[in-house]
Formats: sequence, C-alpha cells, structure tokens
Amino acid sequence: MALHPDRLLPAEPGVRAIARELYGAVRDLPVISPHGHVDPRSLLDDEPFPDPATLLVTPDHYVTRLLHASGVPLEALGVAQPAPTEAQSRAIWRRMCTHWDVFRGTPVRSWFEHELVEIFGIERRPSAASADAIYDELTARLAEPGFRPRALFERFRIAVLATTDDPCDDLAAHAALAADPTWSGRVIPTFRPDRYLEVGSAGWPERMTRLAEVSDIATDDYPGFVAAMEARRRYFISRGATSADHSHEDVRTDPLEGAEAGRIYRAALVGEATAAEAVALRRHLLLEMARMSCEDGLVMTLHPAVRRGHHGPTTERFGADVGADIPIRVEFTDALRPLLERYGTHPGFHLVVFTLDETVWSRELAPLAGFYPSLYVGAPWWFLDAPEAIRRFRRAVTETIGFSRTSGFIDDTRAFCSIPARHDMSRRLDAGWVAELVAQHVFDLDEAAEVMTDLVSGRPTEVFKL
Amino acid sequence: MALHPDRLLPAEPGVRAIARELYGAVRDLPVISPHGHVDPRSLLDDEPFPDPATLLVTPDHYVTRLLHASGVPLEALGVAQPAPTEAQSRAIWRRMCTHWDVFRGTPVRSWFEHELVEIFGIERRPSAASADAIYDELTARLAEPGFRPRALFERFRIAVLATTDDPCDDLAAHAALAADPTWSGRVIPTFRPDRYLEVGSAGWPERMTRLAEVSDIATDDYPGFVAAMEARRRYFISRGATSADHSHEDVRTDPLEGAEAGRIYRAALVGEATAAEAVALRRHLLLEMARMSCEDGLVMTLHPAVRRGHHGPTTERFGADVGADIPIRVEFTDALRPLLERYGTHPGFHLVVFTLDETVWSRELAPLAGFYPSLYVGAPWWFLDAPEAIRRFRRAVTETIGFSRTSGFIDDTRAFCSIPARHDMSRRLDAGWVAELVAQHVFDLDEAAEVMTDLVSGRPTEVFKL
Amino acid sequence: MALHPDRLLPAEPGVRAIARELYGAVRDLPVISPHGHVDPRSLLDDEPFPDPATLLVTPDHYVTRLLHASGVPLEALGVAQPAPTEAQSRAIWRRMCTHWDVFRGTPVRSWFEHELVEIFGIERRPSAASADAIYDELTARLAEPGFRPRALFERFRIAVLATTDDPCDDLAAHAALAADPTWSGRVIPTFRPDRYLEVGSAGWPERMTRLAEVSDIATDDYPGFVAAMEARRRYFISRGATSADHSHEDVRTDPLEGAEAGRIYRAALVGEATAAEAVALRRHLLLEMARMSCEDGLVMTLHPAVRRGHHGPTTERFGADVGADIPIRVEFTDALRPLLERYGTHPGFHLVVFTLDETVWSRELAPLAGFYPSLYVGAPWWFLDAPEAIRRFRRAVTETIGFSRTSGFIDDTRAFCSIPARHDMSRRLDAGWVAELVAQHVFDLDEAAEVMTDLVSGRPTEVFKL
Repeated sequence: MALHPDRLLPAEPGVRAIARELYGAVRDLPVISPHGHVDPRSLLDDEPFPDPATLLVTPDHYVTRLLHASGVPLEALGVAQPAPTEAQSRAIWRRMCTHWDVFRGTPVRSWFEHELVEIFGIERRPSAASADAIYDELTARLAEPGFRPRALFERFRIAVLATTDDPCDDLAAHAALAADPTWSGRVIPTFRPDRYLEVGSAGWPERMTRLAEVSDIATDDYPGFVAAMEARRRYFISRGATSADHSHEDVRTDPLEGAEAGRIYRAALVGEATAAEAVALRRHLLLEMARMSCEDGLVMTLHPAVRRGHHGPTTERFGADVGADIPIRVEFTDALRPLLERYGTHPGFHLVVFTLDETVWSRELAPLAGFYPSLYVGAPWWFLDAPEAIRRFRRAVTETIGFSRTSGFIDDTRAFCSIPARHDMSRRLDAGWVAELVAQHVFDLDEAAEVMTDLVSGRPTEVFKL
Repeated sequence: MALHPDRLLPAEPGVRAIARELYGAVRDLPVISPHGHVDPRSLLDDEPFPDPATLLVTPDHYVTRLLHASGVPLEALGVAQPAPTEAQSRAIWRRMCTHWDVFRGTPVRSWFEHELVEIFGIERRPSAASADAIYDELTARLAEPGFRPRALFERFRIAVLATTDDPCDDLAAHAALAADPTWSGRVIPTFRPDRYLEVGSAGWPERMTRLAEVSDIATDDYPGFVAAMEARRRYFISRGATSADHSHEDVRTDPLEGAEAGRIYRAALVGEATAAEAVALRRHLLLEMARMSCEDGLVMTLHPAVRRGHHGPTTERFGADVGADIPIRVEFTDALRPLLERYGTHPGFHLVVFTLDETVWSRELAPLAGFYPSLYVGAPWWFLDAPEAIRRFRRAVTETIGFSRTSGFIDDTRAFCSIPARHDMSRRLDAGWVAELVAQHVFDLDEAAEVMTDLVSGRPTEVFKL
Repeated sequence: MALHPDRLLPAEPGVRAIARELYGAVRDLPVISPHGHVDPRSLLDDEPFPDPATLLVTPDHYVTRLLHASGVPLEALGVAQPAPTEAQSRAIWRRMCTHWDVFRGTPVRSWFEHELVEIFGIERRPSAASADAIYDELTARLAEPGFRPRALFERFRIAVLATTDDPCDDLAAHAALAADPTWSGRVIPTFRPDRYLEVGSAGWPERMTRLAEVSDIATDDYPGFVAAMEARRRYFISRGATSADHSHEDVRTDPLEGAEAGRIYRAALVGEATAAEAVALRRHLLLEMARMSCEDGLVMTLHPAVRRGHHGPTTERFGADVGADIPIRVEFTDALRPLLERYGTHPGFHLVVFTLDETVWSRELAPLAGFYPSLYVGAPWWFLDAPEAIRRFRRAVTETIGFSRTSGFIDDTRAFCSIPARHDMSRRLDAGWVAELVAQHVFDLDEAAEVMTDLVSGRPTEVFKL
C-alpha cells in the first residue's frame, strides 16, 4: 500500500502536468478548518489517543455505516458500547480490515489509506490476514509522543480549527487552551443552536431553563429567549467564535407576525405548541438568527435537509450519528427569500449555504450567490465530500459564480486523523478542475495559481472571518 | 459498418489501455439476466423468428418511439397491426433504415449495430438505399437453424434468463422448458403483481375472481387476498422464481391501521373505493409485499415513477408499451421509511431499487444502501441504460457505497437479440469507469479485476439470489 | 490577452484533433438567432453605439449581477441611472476591469474576451491598471463606421435575428427595416404575450384596453380577448414572426371548463379575480396559445420557472432584468400533458421547451421529445448557456433523442456584441461533444460532420420555421 503522488489528479497527461504544478503550490499550505466536530478537550489534555478501533473505526459513521450495510452489526464495531478491551478493539479492527474491499472507490478508503500511510507509516494493505500486524503497528505508534493530539495538530499544519458547541457550553476547554502558555494553536468554538430553535423537540423546555441559568436572563417569555440567545452568542464571540451553524429539515425563513412568536413560545414552554406551530416558530427563529448575525457579525452557516436517525430501532439502541442519516430534497430560492430580502445585502453579513441535494447547485445556490453579496455557496459536504461530487460541484457552480463566491473547503469531521487527508483531497481536486480550465484556455496559468491560493487560504479566511 | 473493438471505452490512451484489459477479462463471461421481458414460449417452441420487422422493429418501443417522434406513424411501423405481409414487413424495415440518422448518439443505435454485425453479419450501414439488401440478408439468416431462439440463447452464453409474469400465470412454458431433456438453459419466472395491488384499476375485481380460481383460495375478503398472493408467490418459487417486481407511481409504504385495509379491499371489490383509498391500499400492500419477501425469500425489486400511456389517444389506439411512457420525479427517503424501519435489517431480505430520476442516486439511494443491509441500488434502467447515464450512475453512487451495494446489470428488454449488445455495453462502461479509478490511483489493478468480475457475475448472482 | 484557437475544445489530443476539424467546418457558417432581445431600432437608426460602459456593462445583467455580488452597488454600474457622463462611464468601466478576476471560469469572461479581442482588437487583459487605456481604445473604435450596428451585423454574419416584442407593439422598426432598400438583413419579431396572460398582474386591465385599441377588437369579454390575441398573432406573422415565446412560473396547461374562463376573465377586468383564479386562467390560456399555434403556425417556446425580481428592494429601485432573477424547480411531464394530449401529434405544431432546472433533461424533456413529434428540447439557456452546462445537456439528452429533437442554439441576449462569441462557444462545445462520440466509435466522422451542420444550420431553421 502506497500513496501515488498523482492520485486523484486528471488522467490526461497534459492536464495532469498542469494540475501537478497547481497542487504542488498549495500542498503544504496550512490547514484552515472552519467547521468540524473535533473535541477540544483532546487537545487540552493531550493524552495519547486510545486503541486503533476507538480512534479510527467506532466513532466514524462514514466507516461504520458501510460496514453495517455489509452485514456487520453496529455493536460488533463498538458503537454505543463501553470502551473496548484490547481483544475487543483488535476484533473490531479485524472486522474493518476484513471488509476493506467494500470501501473500494469511496473517499473513506482514500482518507484511510492516507492516514495509515502518511501519519502512521503503515505499508500493508488491510485485510483479514494483515489486520493483526497493522493493529500492532498502530498501537505502537499511538504510544509514541509524536502521535499525541498536540503533536499531530502541529504536524498537520492546522492554522485554525473550529469545533461545534452547544449554546450553553461554558467553552472551558477553549478558554484553557487559549490560556495555556505551552500551546499556540487556534481552536475556536462554533455556536450551534439547533436544539434551541426546535421548540417541539424532546427536552426543549428544560433547555430553556438551562439557557436562563447560563445566560442569567429569564427565558419565560420570547423576548427573554431572544436576549438570552444574543447573550450566548456574545459569549461565544468573546471566546473566539466566528460562526453559527444551523441544521434543520428545511431553510424556510417566514417571519411570524406581531405577537405570534411569543404566543407559540409560551405554548411550547408548557408543551402545548402543535407540530405546525413548532415548525413555524423555528422558521421565524432562523430569520432571527440572521438578524443577530447582521448585528454581532457571526457568520451564519446552513446544513439542511437530512432525515436524522432514519431507522428508528437503530437510533433507539445506538443513538445519533451512527450512519443512519439520509438526505432529502431541499429548496432554497423561495425558502430563503424572506431572509435575503431583509439581509441579503446587509454589509458584513455572511451566509454560507451547504447542501446534500446537488440539484440546487446550478439551479438555486449559484444564481443566489451570483447576486446577493452576503451569500456564499458552501463546499460539498458529507456524502458529497468526495472526488466526483466535488468535480460536479465545481462544474455546476463555477460558470455562474466563478470561484470568489464559494466558501472554501470544510472537513466537517469528528475523525481528527482524517483532517490532513480530507484537505489534501480537496486541494488535489480543485487543482484538477482549475487545470482543466487552463488546458481549455479558459484562463491562464498565472491566474490559475492565484485561484488555487485563494481557494485554500483566501476563501475560508474571508468567508468565515478568520 | 463495423464494430470497433474499443468502442465506448475512454478516449484517453492510458485509461483506454487499462479499460481494454479489464473489459477483456469479463467480455466472455456468461450473461446473467435477472430482469427482462422475453417470452419463454419462444424458447420452448424454438420456431424460427418471424420477419425482420416483427423481430427487430415493431415490438421494440425504444425503436418505435424515436421513429414516431420523427414523424413516422406507429401503424406504419406495424404497431398493434396484424402480422405483416412480406411487403409490409419490408416497408417497415425500410422506414427504420431511412431514419437511421435519428438514432445517432443513442444506445439503440449501438445495440442495433451490434445485433446486425455480430449476430447477423450485416456489413452495410442501414439507409434507404441499403434497406432492401439488408432485409434480404436478415431474412436468409433467420431461416437458418443457427438463428433459432435456442441456438441464439446458447450463442449468447445466457446463464440465467428471468421473464416477467402475471401472478395467475400457470408458468406452463417454464415448466415445460425445465422438463425438456433436450434443453439445459435456465429460464425463471418473476412475480409481477402490479395490477393486483392497484385496486382501483380497470378489471381489478375480475382479477380477484381469477386469483381465487388459480390459487383455490377465496378472495372475497382481505385475509383471503393476502393468503392467495402468498400462495401464488410460493407457486412461482416452486417454478424457479427468485424475485418479485413492482412498478407503481410512487413507493410510499405507509401501513393502514387495523381493519382499514380490509374495509378498502371490500369497497374496491364492488367498485366503491375512492381513488385516494385505492392509493392508500396499494401503499399498504407494497409494505405487505416486503413482509412476504422477508418470509418467502423473493427478492423485491422496485421500478417506480413512470407516467404510463402519457398520450391517451395513442394508448387507446395502440395499447401499452409503445413508447409513450414518461418518467416523473420520485422520492425514496421518506417513502420507503416505514418499510425500511420494519424490514431494512431483516436477514436475507433483498430490496433492489431502480430509478429513472437520477437526482436520487447520490441524494437518497446511495445513502440508503450505504446503511441498510437489505437495500441495493439497481443499475440504470430504461432511458438511463445508456453510456453517459451509466457513467453518471457510477460517479453518483460509488463514492457513497463502492460497488458491493449495487445490483449488477439488468437488461429489462423484450428484444431478445439485443441482450448480448446490452450486456456488452454495460461491461465496457463499467470497465471504463473502473479504469478511470485505477488511472487516478484510487485502487490498484488487481483490485480492479476483482471488481469487474464481481460486477458481471457476483453482484447479480448474490443480489438476485440466483 | 489572446484567444487560443483551441479554446473550449476537449483537452485530450486525439479528441481535440477531431473536434478541431468538426468545429472548423462550421466556424464560419452564418449565425441564426431565433430568440433574443436586441432592440431593432439600433439597426434601423444605425447610430454609433454609446460609450463602453453603456454598451458592454450597464445593460448586461450577466455582468452586473456578479459585480453586485462582489460588492459593487448597481447604481455604481449605471443601472437605472441617466446616461453617464464620460467620467461616469469611465468609472463604471474601471469598476468592471478592477473586478475582472471574479469572472474567472464563467462564460461571461469568455464572451467578454471574445468581444474585446475579436471585435475591438483589444490586447490588454482588463485590470485596474489597464482600464483607462482599454476604455480609450474602445471609445476610438466605437467612433469608426465599421463599428456601427449594421456593419457589425454584417461582420457577425447574422442570417436571421429574432427580437422579442409586446403583442401591442406596432413593429414599426421591423417594417421600416424591411422596407429599407439599403438594408438586406433579416430581423423578425417574436410574439411575447406573458403579461397579457397573467390576468392578476399589475396593469393587466389597462393592457386589455390597449389590446382592444391596437387590434380594433373589443376585449371586454373572453371571446373578444381571444380574437384580439389571434389578430395580433396574425399581425406579427405578417411582419415576419415565426414564434411566440412564453415565460411563466410553471407550464401547467389545465383547461377550464365551459364558461369558467369567461367568468374569471370578467372578474379580472374589474380586479376581482383571486390569485388562484388568475393562475388557473393563465394555465388555460397557455393551452389556448398552443391551439392558436396549431392554427396559425407560430412556433411555441416555453422558458418557465424563474422567480423574477427575487430581491424586492432591488426591483423597486432598479426595475427588472438587473440580475436578481433566480430559478426554481419545474415539472413538465404532468404539466404539459393536457397540451400534448390535444396537440402533441398535431402536424406542423412545434413546441420548444427550455429549462433552468437541469434535472428534467433526462427525466422528462428528452423522453417527451422522444415520443411527441411536436416537442423539441431547447438548448441550454441563461445560467445554463455555459460550457459545462452545455456538455451536461448533450450528455443528458442525446442518448434518448439523438440530435434531431433538439432546437439548435439560441443566444437569448440583449448584448448585441456578444452574439458571435455565444454562437462560437456553442459550436466549439457541440464539436467537442460530437468528437467525443467519434473517439468512442459511437458513429463515424462523416456522420459527425452532418450532425454539426445540422446543429448549426438545420435545427434552428427547421425547428423555428425560418
């Protein structure tokens, strides 16, 4: 198992030569990660990572989902189980290696290879036969100081790492890291209020109580809730946050008239809001979040339209984020219109829109971002963070908005060790696309080099206000 | 007219060389055809095929539709007409040849060329000028023993051929073929109950009467209907069937509560079910079919979302399947949820989902098949059984589910002589796609060879339980 | 800045060589422009074009939209402002040049380069530094006789140019041009009745009054309206029109029963039709327009599904067509069914359907055009008139309908100087696609040459009845 230096670059030799040059110029630039799910405590504590299964298999739903589809039960991968014994971890690892062939052609395989070869120096291709030897090699590496979180953070050349955090989180880990004189990395929180806007969701009244506690603002009426949310956003900003992330079933932003928001809010507090009212209030609140972003400057990002926990029995038994989330169709043109009519030209407001429904790239998102100064098209995400999907993305949006109205790459990962692999893949694919344009004489090589640097450094820095 | 050995392989010489090697390794593997519309009686009787028009033009709606769009009336192609005289057949053939240019760029043209050159040894390109000479050549060939159905079946290297059959069919032809000591081919039926689930369709009460007769189970109430359907499925299984095929407007699978299914069933028997009730019962019954598949093992396949007989006047005059069927949008994530929550992890249950709406490949089907062990993404079908669509399919699904969660190729054809051409095209295109991945160093050549054999032999054998 | 002779041709050298040959054979064929928005008065008057900003920036919403998204206010581009002074024009031009990089990868950039280099002989790449010098060069050129509208019309080799006109327009400019003995170009009007079918739109009753005046037919009841519209169509036909263009939110064509159309019509005249009634009447009227086309022979074209003036404040301040129009999803299979059941096989009826929602190309439009002799799939339009989108279009529709059921290129532009660039781009891309098919041995080179000529000359001439 080896990583070919030209992997994922276009096959045609002329285009590949251009792509190789463009990629080479950005390959070693620092990683900017404005949206992800790494736990900041791992960097604060800097303890050695646990066993190979717990590091690389169990928590990564990209990995567990396809193994599950291939007949491996989630519990046999350690999902929602106590920390594995050495024998259990080895068995989990062996199950993954035994099914190595099911990952052929997927980015999970490419990322995994990158991690094993580049980070851990593994040279054997995973298989039932090689599983134990690789396990032993990994275990040995993980015990070395150079494989602790902080050492890897530095080795990965991470310039900024954004985490995703609950509005009531005290962000203690972020503060401690920032205060640590032995640490110079930039790890910033992201305000993620989904569960506070879904007023019909289980536990929502309790969350309001907690919100009142941490904000010291009464949340027994709607103005109090708004004030408390604004306060928490300010708190996040004071701890380095630059963006707020939102993921709901849709992105409608219809305002509620006059006292209606307050009425539904109070009904929800006592569990008496109807499902339709809860949705109406959430849509209104999404609009409110945009207003707050105009005022406090937090970049607003949208990741909508996923049916979470599609398989009820799995959710009940194993919880969320185990691979059973399935995208649905989404609509932006009409849904975002109330928001964009109000704030789409607001100076300094940044709205970054992601999608798992590719049909909106050329039909809705690029046209929107090609008019509204505040709207940026987010990079391909989740299922679409993959070579062919990234190519489709660039082909779908570039002709309407060029490069400047796109967000730059986000890795959105909870798999810390996959960060370099994911960013490297993105750089290779963007280099390939830009090289194709150069080969077709759409623009010149000097411009192409500018585009590449802008995509890797300029876009995320500017769009996410880093 | 000649068939280039490299046709449909990627143009770039390096990739083409890899593709040529991969294709070469599977080119001569037996044909597995788990879903199609060939009449088993033609193989039982083994009579010479009729005239060229009746064999190659009139019954093939892929051919007649585009000729119709080009201004040739369906009756002038023999559709829904008595068997043609020699002069009529020759005239039909000439009309097709005269319009040969309208097929440029379509797979119909590629298949047709393959048939004419490979099977019949024709070397002239069809045109008004060459039509008669080709007609004479074809007529001469069809009179030869080597061009009878059984000889061609063998020459085509067909390992398994599945037909599509009405639940009340006695499957006599299948039984006779199986009992024929001079015949060793495998021809299996497929259970296709659409018209039995559409309780509002014309003739449905009469079908229930017939169902009662052939099953010897009273169908005057809902439990009887269910029992009769189960009995017919067992009958089909006893005759070799391994799958049940379903094609409705949508694939919703919402269960009806308690006595509701029975109530609608009885209303439908006397023609008093509303249109909405008929749809509700069909959706419930689709869920029931999945339950039966869990119990009896028949693979469940779905081919939804076509507006059949879009042009009423044509349907009235020429009947169904003449080229006037038009796809519509379809949704799977929510529609299949009730089914998948119940049966999506049932051991041994296989659900294969086909679509004419490409937007669901990356958004819904691949994510579903990447979690649920029972769900496989069906190969591109009908309008999408074409080179670029097949490429889009692989590009859309491979990154989420690799190769193992796809169904393998189905030809879905009633044009017996097009079977080798269709499978050959599929093999060339898969070889091209896999070669691209090798050329980009996504995986190695030894793995690519495994993938190819799996796609051609492993997938259909396993997925369709052959 | 130079135009590479192989720009936009496929990168692979073998395919490029074929494409170059195919493109070369059609490069210099006359331009047929059956749908666009050029003002015929500019050709009648043949006055020199105004300053560079007013010619090339201010009125072109392809240009202004992306500059607006990049932070340049529309008023700073001269939109909805009085004619600029020389200093203002120079400043607008400089703003465009300063933001030249935002157009990288867009067709706007390619067209602009083509115009500057080919028409005006500019060799400097636009930038803040070069803006003034280019401005001066352009100003000098525009003063020369060879850069007046008629000279350019001839230089552009325009064989036919269709304008877009209000049904009440007297078409005086068309008549004067046709009567001018010093002018031999063909400039024909297009009947565009949108605002007359949207009975709920502002000013509709007044339009009915005006319609009565110009047609000399009373429009105070529905039959009168129909007769007046028929009369205006005849008038347009007498002035050379061959088509009628329609752009509404959807393309439903449900007929209204009996007196219902008349009832709604009368209610609308006094401002008492509900929004739903207005939509119902518009859908009915779209069906009526098809009936008229069957009778009078005007080609019917549909350009649906754009949310016009998405940003209310911009529309209020700057009016329509300034870059704030955003596409929405569209459906054709069911929507057009009433129309196609009635007129889809009517001899001589031509219906050309355009879309900004790419998902319908393979799913709906190609299947429809592959059966109905009257329906043609329109070329990629507006946001989709771009290299990758055009490639996707050909890949999506060719396999179902070949080339003969497509419309040929339309430029749809109000930017007169971009016409050669747009047609040249289309020819290059079609040559590239056809070359790919030849390189894959889908058809032969002699057939490919026929296809190219047909696409550039045959299709638009036949489909638009020119």
